[in-house]
Amino acid sequence: MLSFSAIEQARQRLSGVAHRTPLITSRALNALCDRQVWLKAENLQHTGAFKIRGAYNALAAALEQGRVGRVVTYSSGNHGQAIARSAQLLNVDATIVMPNDAPEVKKAAVRHYGATIVTYDRFAEDRAAVAAAIASETGAIIIPPFDHLDVMAGQGTCGLELIEDAPPLDAIAVCLGGGGLLSGIATAANHLSPTTQVIGVEPATGDDGAQSLRAGRLITIYQPVTIADGQATTALGAHTFEVIADKVPAIVTVTDRDIVEAMRFCFDRLRLVVEPSGASALAAVMTGKIGTPGQRVAATLSGGNVDRARFAELIINGVE
Amino acid sequence: MLSFSAIEQARQRLSGVAHRTPLITSRALNALCDRQVWLKAENLQHTGAFKIRGAYNALAAALEQGRVGRVVTYSSGNHGQAIARSAQLLNVDATIVMPNDAPEVKKAAVRHYGATIVTYDRFAEDRAAVAAAIASETGAIIIPPFDHLDVMAGQGTCGLELIEDAPPLDAIAVCLGGGGLLSGIATAANHLSPTTQVIGVEPATGDDGAQSLRAGRLITIYQPVTIADGQATTALGAHTFEVIADKVPAIVTVTDRDIVEAMRFCFDRLRLVVEPSGASALAAVMTGKIGTPGQRVAATLSGGNVDRARFAELIINGVE
Repeated sequence: MLSFSAIEQARQRLSGVAHRTPLITSRALNALCDRQVWLKAENLQHTGAFKIRGAYNALAAALEQGRVGRVVTYSSGNHGQAIARSAQLLNVDATIVMPNDAPEVKKAAVRHYGATIVTYDRFAEDRAAVAAAIASETGAIIIPPFDHLDVMAGQGTCGLELIEDAPPLDAIAVCLGGGGLLSGIATAANHLSPTTQVIGVEPATGDDGAQSLRAGRLITIYQPVTIADGQATTALGAHTFEVIADKVPAIVTVTDRDIVEAMRFCFDRLRLVVEPSGASALAAVMTGKIGTPGQRVAATLSGGNVDRARFAELIINGVE
Repeated sequence: MLSFSAIEQARQRLSGVAHRTPLITSRALNALCDRQVWLKAENLQHTGAFKIRGAYNALAAALEQGRVGRVVTYSSGNHGQAIARSAQLLNVDATIVMPNDAPEVKKAAVRHYGATIVTYDRFAEDRAAVAAAIASETGAIIIPPFDHLDVMAGQGTCGLELIEDAPPLDAIAVCLGGGGLLSGIATAANHLSPTTQVIGVEPATGDDGAQSLRAGRLITIYQPVTIADGQATTALGAHTFEVIADKVPAIVTVTDRDIVEAMRFCFDRLRLVVEPSGASALAAVMTGKIGTPGQRVAATLSGGNVDRARFAELIINGVE
């Protein structure tokens, strides 16, 4: 199981690479939610999402074990970008397996960091199998987007900072796709602030995590359709689920409409660009699903990588 | 003339009211500009712009001198919003004289803070005269948007923080409308870091400041047309010009197109919403007008109050 000391070790590796992102507060948000709210602005993170924490930590840890000629991963976008950037920083070649419908801004960023892109059809192909084939052909190591202890440890550094920088919190809402960020933050919080409840937040159409937590075993769902492309996972991982089942008391869901409202609030009142997947935890706070009135709660704004046109469409016209 | 101690005193008054806004850095920006760049994110300030610093400081200072029943001001938006919010915090009634074409988001925010709005035609009427009439009818005090020592001192606190939080800087680019922010930051920098050049940045169509600095006297221009509505001033003030003539070596200009490029960079790479007036200083850095290659430069991102539709139009379609 993921250990707290692995998160502390990740923090050492990430020094000078990942930003210590600011905690954002807003009186308007506190009034709206009837809670005191702190937002961890990982949309302001290097590469625009928390994913650089886990990606860099895992690649740096692999290099400490010996030579790595190539790294390959599969990702709906932000993890791919983070691996591409980490590989560039650490002088390793990278191949990123991405869905052919990933936002153009994410593909462009991966190319910008010098990585090779291989696309696949996320409704027909298994991305892990595509990556495994590349790894076996090229001798590359695979760093998956969430189900890997070093990736989880890296994401956990976000929780370290959050708990150090905020006053004692009653609850932390965490955007949940495959569970890397949630398992990392839950492990950090459990060690540093055991009374803080760490709650996962999923899109309503992609509630595999909530189903798994209730069932006490990993449940796989059909490919969900949601504006939160980074959370359109079909299952948690074995490693992330182990931590979540042990340390996360609840997983709640929000609709795409709730997510758009949270994105609009971020634009109008916080002047922050947040992508749909990154706004889900705030959406849960705004709809009253995290903590109780008067409590101190935090939420991750986990990323801000979204096309200009897509962003404008969502904040102006919303979802039908 | 504005003193450094007045800025220190303003900082005391602003404690717990204004955020210490983060300094944002970006490797992509450094590479693009061939300089090391620090951005002072005043778009993340309470009320969405640096204006709360000067407005609150001036109103609090007036209250220290005796009873204030009502405050009136005239403003293209952010200062009006800041006075409205300051009056609400300090339990004073407020009347805000705003141009009838001010962005709806700014009018709504002023109303939200409980202030009364009086509109005027900025191409036909004199906003200061409208405010003076209200003041003489109601006995209100007037806190103008920039030409007031306590307003300038409040804006100077932005410079204090910038200089304390950044390494020694070669230059600071400051968005320039009436000169409150520029005179405040120049006074702070001159005291704390005399070798740092503080440079004003105006829209090209509204270069009254640059003209005044060259002429050595206050020049008034016709009402400029620019997307940077907060910088569409016709002249600096007597107090702000006195400081600027003494402490500012240069004022440069940028086009509306440059401003849109800076807004796009903020959206795409920094995940920040910056209004046109707030992006002009960054536009000057991005077009190579501040410092020389390899130098350390800073720029103010002075505000982020912009309608969703206007923002989308500008970042997607730009200016013709």
